[in-house]
Amino acid sequence: MTPSILVINPNCTEAMTRGIDDACAPLRMPGGPAIETATLKEGPPGIETQQHVDGLIPPLTAFVRKNEAKHAAFVIACYSDPGIFSVREVTKKPVLGIAECGILTAMTLGSKFGVIAILQKSIPRHLRYMGAMGVMDRCAGELPVDLPVLELADEKKTFGRMVSVGRKLREQGADVVVMGCAGMARYRDALQQELGVPVVEPTQAAVSMAIGRVRVNWERI
Amino acid sequence: MTPSILVINPNCTEAMTRGIDDACAPLRMPGGPAIETATLKEGPPGIETQQHVDGLIPPLTAFVRKNEAKHAAFVIACYSDPGIFSVREVTKKPVLGIAECGILTAMTLGSKFGVIAILQKSIPRHLRYMGAMGVMDRCAGELPVDLPVLELADEKKTFGRMVSVGRKLREQGADVVVMGCAGMARYRDALQQELGVPVVEPTQAAVSMAIGRVRVNWERI
Amino acid sequence: MTPSILVINPNCTEAMTRGIDDACAPLRMPGGPAIETATLKEGPPGIETQQHVDGLIPPLTAFVRKNEAKHAAFVIACYSDPGIFSVREVTKKPVLGIAECGILTAMTLGSKFGVIAILQKSIPRHLRYMGAMGVMDRCAGELPVDLPVLELADEKKTFGRMVSVGRKLREQGADVVVMGCAGMARYRDALQQELGVPVVEPTQAAVSMAIGRVRVNWERI
Amino acid sequence: MTPSILVINPNCTEAMTRGIDDACAPLRMPGGPAIETATLKEGPPGIETQQHVDGLIPPLTAFVRKNEAKHAAFVIACYSDPGIFSVREVTKKPVLGIAECGILTAMTLGSKFGVIAILQKSIPRHLRYMGAMGVMDRCAGELPVDLPVLELADEKKTFGRMVSVGRKLREQGADVVVMGCAGMARYRDALQQELGVPVVEPTQAAVSMAIGRVRVNWERI
Amino acid sequence: MTPSILVINPNCTEAMTRGIDDACAPLRMPGGPAIETATLKEGPPGIETQQHVDGLIPPLTAFVRKNEAKHAAFVIACYSDPGIFSVREVTKKPVLGIAECGILTAMTLGSKFGVIAILQKSIPRHLRYMGAMGVMDRCAGELPVDLPVLELADEKKTFGRMVSVGRKLREQGADVVVMGCAGMARYRDALQQELGVPVVEPTQAAVSMAIGRVRVNWERI
Amino acid sequence: MTPSILVINPNCTEAMTRGIDDACAPLRMPGGPAIETATLKEGPPGIETQQHVDGLIPPLTAFVRKNEAKHAAFVIACYSDPGIFSVREVTKKPVLGIAECGILTAMTLGSKFGVIAILQKSIPRHLRYMGAMGVMDRCAGELPVDLPVLELADEKKTFGRMVSVGRKLREQGADVVVMGCAGMARYRDALQQELGVPVVEPTQAAVSMAIGRVRVNWERI
Repeated sequence: MTPSILVINPNCTEAMTRGIDDACAPLRMPGGPAIETATLKEGPPGIETQQHVDGLIPPLTAFVRKNEAKHAAFVIACYSDPGIFSVREVTKKPVLGIAECGILTAMTLGSKFGVIAILQKSIPRHLRYMGAMGVMDRCAGELPVDLPVLELADEKKTFGRMVSVGRKLREQGADVVVMGCAGMARYRDALQQELGVPVVEPTQAAVSMAIGRVRVNWERI
Repeated sequence: MTPSILVINPNCTEAMTRGIDDACAPLRMPGGPAIETATLKEGPPGIETQQHVDGLIPPLTAFVRKNEAKHAAFVIACYSDPGIFSVREVTKKPVLGIAECGILTAMTLGSKFGVIAILQKSIPRHLRYMGAMGVMDRCAGELPVDLPVLELADEKKTFGRMVSVGRKLREQGADVVVMGCAGMARYRDALQQELGVPVVEPTQAAVSMAIGRVRVNWERI
Repeated sequence: MTPSILVINPNCTEAMTRGIDDACAPLRMPGGPAIETATLKEGPPGIETQQHVDGLIPPLTAFVRKNEAKHAAFVIACYSDPGIFSVREVTKKPVLGIAECGILTAMTLGSKFGVIAILQKSIPRHLRYMGAMGVMDRCAGELPVDLPVLELADEKKTFGRMVSVGRKLREQGADVVVMGCAGMARYRDALQQELGVPVVEPTQAAVSMAIGRVRVNWERI
Repeated sequence: MTPSILVINPNCTEAMTRGIDDACAPLRMPGGPAIETATLKEGPPGIETQQHVDGLIPPLTAFVRKNEAKHAAFVIACYSDPGIFSVREVTKKPVLGIAECGILTAMTLGSKFGVIAILQKSIPRHLRYMGAMGVMDRCAGELPVDLPVLELADEKKTFGRMVSVGRKLREQGADVVVMGCAGMARYRDALQQELGVPVVEPTQAAVSMAIGRVRVNWERI
Repeated sequence: MTPSILVINPNCTEAMTRGIDDACAPLRMPGGPAIETATLKEGPPGIETQQHVDGLIPPLTAFVRKNEAKHAAFVIACYSDPGIFSVREVTKKPVLGIAECGILTAMTLGSKFGVIAILQKSIPRHLRYMGAMGVMDRCAGELPVDLPVLELADEKKTFGRMVSVGRKLREQGADVVVMGCAGMARYRDALQQELGVPVVEPTQAAVSMAIGRVRVNWERI
Repeated sequence: MTPSILVINPNCTEAMTRGIDDACAPLRMPGGPAIETATLKEGPPGIETQQHVDGLIPPLTAFVRKNEAKHAAFVIACYSDPGIFSVREVTKKPVLGIAECGILTAMTLGSKFGVIAILQKSIPRHLRYMGAMGVMDRCAGELPVDLPVLELADEKKTFGRMVSVGRKLREQGADVVVMGCAGMARYRDALQQELGVPVVEPTQAAVSMAIGRVRVNWERI
């Protein structure tokens, strides 16, 4: 039986999961690990606050515990990497977060990375995470799109904001940009084109690393 | 009515809360803020794993929300500062963690601080936190007492281990030591005596900062 | 007899000492440590240069030595923390500086702090101090009000400059602001209101920490 | 036609290339990118000095330029990542180094990584590289096996030294270990078993990341 | 016989070497080391890319090996310090790079240094070098003149760009500026005048340090 | 008239000044700047405490002010670089400290430097200075000789301790050693021989840089 990687969208918005699933498509290879996606139905509709992040961890760990035997690796597909260290206690199998993998991948693509966040209020949380990762010297900055939720549905407006934020990050020294949300994948190609620097889609970054981990079969100890 | 600081023991062990309450005694002043302690009864008996930390956040935030109006400030009395950023969303009143305040206080008492942890497995979590705080250059190291729970009850053995760990931290360059647990307060004086460097009891460090915060009435925004 | 904290204005301008004394008022509690202020009459009228800072250390240490027995703790109320390490040799009682305590307190209130200095030429000195503290990763920047002394008397103009400098610090990523001078206390509430981020008055930050230190009676060794 | 990843051993020792090829085996998937290996015949027999590193760059870039059209990505399989930035000028296709990918992968597996080098004299070069990567805060140390070349052929002796070096790194705080040479792959499983912490084989780490990069087709710009 | 310092221009442009020679003039003292300059005729006309940097290392090390006995110290006069670590293997005599010496010298002249580069594309390389040096906390930024080669011949235009770039670096916090190219020496005095902060000419910085090294006769080991 | 560099021993022990003068001898060149030494007679006999450091600054600045016109540059020959920033306000001519120049010079000679201090109690002060310099990532450690003053006169014993401390620094990763005192010069050659790594004598490092500064005539601004 083919081993599988479970990519978990920890918010309960199925449309987001479908977008994540689409982002995984190029990483599905005959003979490679299956890549499945799941929605944490106990998650909030969107993950905006620290309470959203912390509140979903108990159901997320329960969910992974329940499904642990069925999968070879787990990816947490929210740019706050919620519960990543708790989930790593639930299973010795690989558990990867899209924020860490997005950033680490960016570090192979440029000298300074910038991050495009959705919301200003997520940035202190992300800064703490980058500090914990020990990579602040490589970070040129993180800036928010900061559109009201309703306007995020307007793809043209959203993309326009991503471009202007990306340009500001370039001015601050970024020569590679990380998309700071699991729901931005469909804009990646156009954004890279527009900005003229590599753009990292973090779910793809994490699933890429998970594939290798499944194949070489390194357990954590 | 006197404003009060609520010091929350986020594990459910009442004996620990009593120890915390004793540690607060010297900080109770006529005319100063009342200092009350509470036990999070939904917390685990001891906070050892990341799942313990993350799992208690929802009941902790609920508890603070319920008691928010009654107190002027909140201290989270576990050296992992569990839920500190979620609780700061629940109230604009001061919320302080004993790990952050213990470390920041140590930074006024020496050039390099060392931390005495209870368990080896907590250290990666504490390292991430120190990284997020941006204070790794001041940290000489963190080492665990690493006694089985049953032997922690043996005060003589526990103190002996704290002394030997403290000495190893001194050899690594620490000239101030932080007690990495809310339950070590009763050993502080003797440990400082034995080690010959200042020893920071982190609950006292946090409550001290909370008293000032209550008096000057700075709200977060 | 009530123990007392002596807050020393190391410049000789009595009006500054009165402002510092006013800033301490909310921290005076009936059963808490007395908080007294003193003016170092050998200090310069204002502390602007490195020579001012270094030149006042001998009289400051003499002053503390002479008054050592009468007080339980000492606060040096100049944002360059002049002589803090010499004074710590004169007494084993707590000695706190307003720059260190202002910054450490800000680190509990935001993810990146900014500092409002009076003069451009003080900033290199402050940068060295932040470097020595090991907290540069948390600093979003320091910017000067840079008004000629005569215009500092114009409160409206001064406040206007503090607001514009504070806004620039916010743009640079600061989500908490430290007042980089002992003489700005009266602007704190209005400035916080105007900027929409917490503003730390450093003398209050230092006295707060000193109160706790007196109560728990930790000597340095 | 299946795209292929070319893993280049930049020293001229074919036996080393065969070991690298074996290390790649688990990452070959029926529908995934082909993984080919090549030996840089102009390279030195072993890469020990800075002159070895720098001297092989011109033939390495020539080699990549010549083969650029035939492959979808390139991995440089020497733990000094020789010529990585020159090769990235030769092609816009992904170019990954095993040192950077080994370290970045370790950062997802522990809080502090240690590196096992072959030679003491390589360590300053590796330290410079980690400094350039901005990841020194995550590094617990790097220590050499330091066996004379002839004795490296003695697998039992070599493994014994790797175990003792790995244990010393653990004592220095490492909770994940990176193999600092492309020729150590066959020891990975046993070493991880012996040390009780994850052990990263860097060629596998790099090829894993390359597979994803080929699939998602991110060009550098 | 007077010992001599050989200052090597690793590009093949003789006019550049003459400019370097002029820059060395004030450092020639009767009774002091002779200061000779040489052109690496195998070098590229200008050093712009990583391939230029890496490609000149083999001829550079060959050149130094050949001339090793004739000189007491070597300075590599290109702001990428090409081959510095290889050359240090060729001789135990002092080998200094103008980038390292320019930056280290700037660290004695201000609190934050800024660098004026010729080309944007050199900046990631310089950032890696500053990261490897461990001095990023002192760097306020690096910005390029970014003029097409033909326009660099226009001294007035070039100087104008250097002034505007230098001013931008000052706004970013630089209080000392390093010239990020061996060919800018003739602009130093005027640039310092214009910017009002010290300007470091890196060849002069390196030769200065080399003179002392020759006199005190410290060999590397 | 030949310009001169004044090397000031800020303690009042003439024997120390003579040792410093001897250390300068190889840097005296017929056509180079004169190198003179002076003793600050108001300085303490030895500089051991922070009060010694701070207390000598007023007479030191007075001394430099008085002699400013007579010299072209000033070196402060105590490893605490006392008063360096005040003296830089007194004159626009070059002012260099032996600690900063010793460390910066070591950064050209190895990847990690270690420092041999005389006294344990000086180390926190030196750590703050290295933090302010922003070079902590390059420091492998600082360790004291820690001999009672009387025993320092015993050269054999002192040298023995320097060797054993130097070896411990090597074990901690140092591949270059800085002598953390102006009075150790006579041991340099033998210590380097014994340790097998470069040993930096800091007064020679500072005077070397001063010679260049005098010749190129860069004023601070």
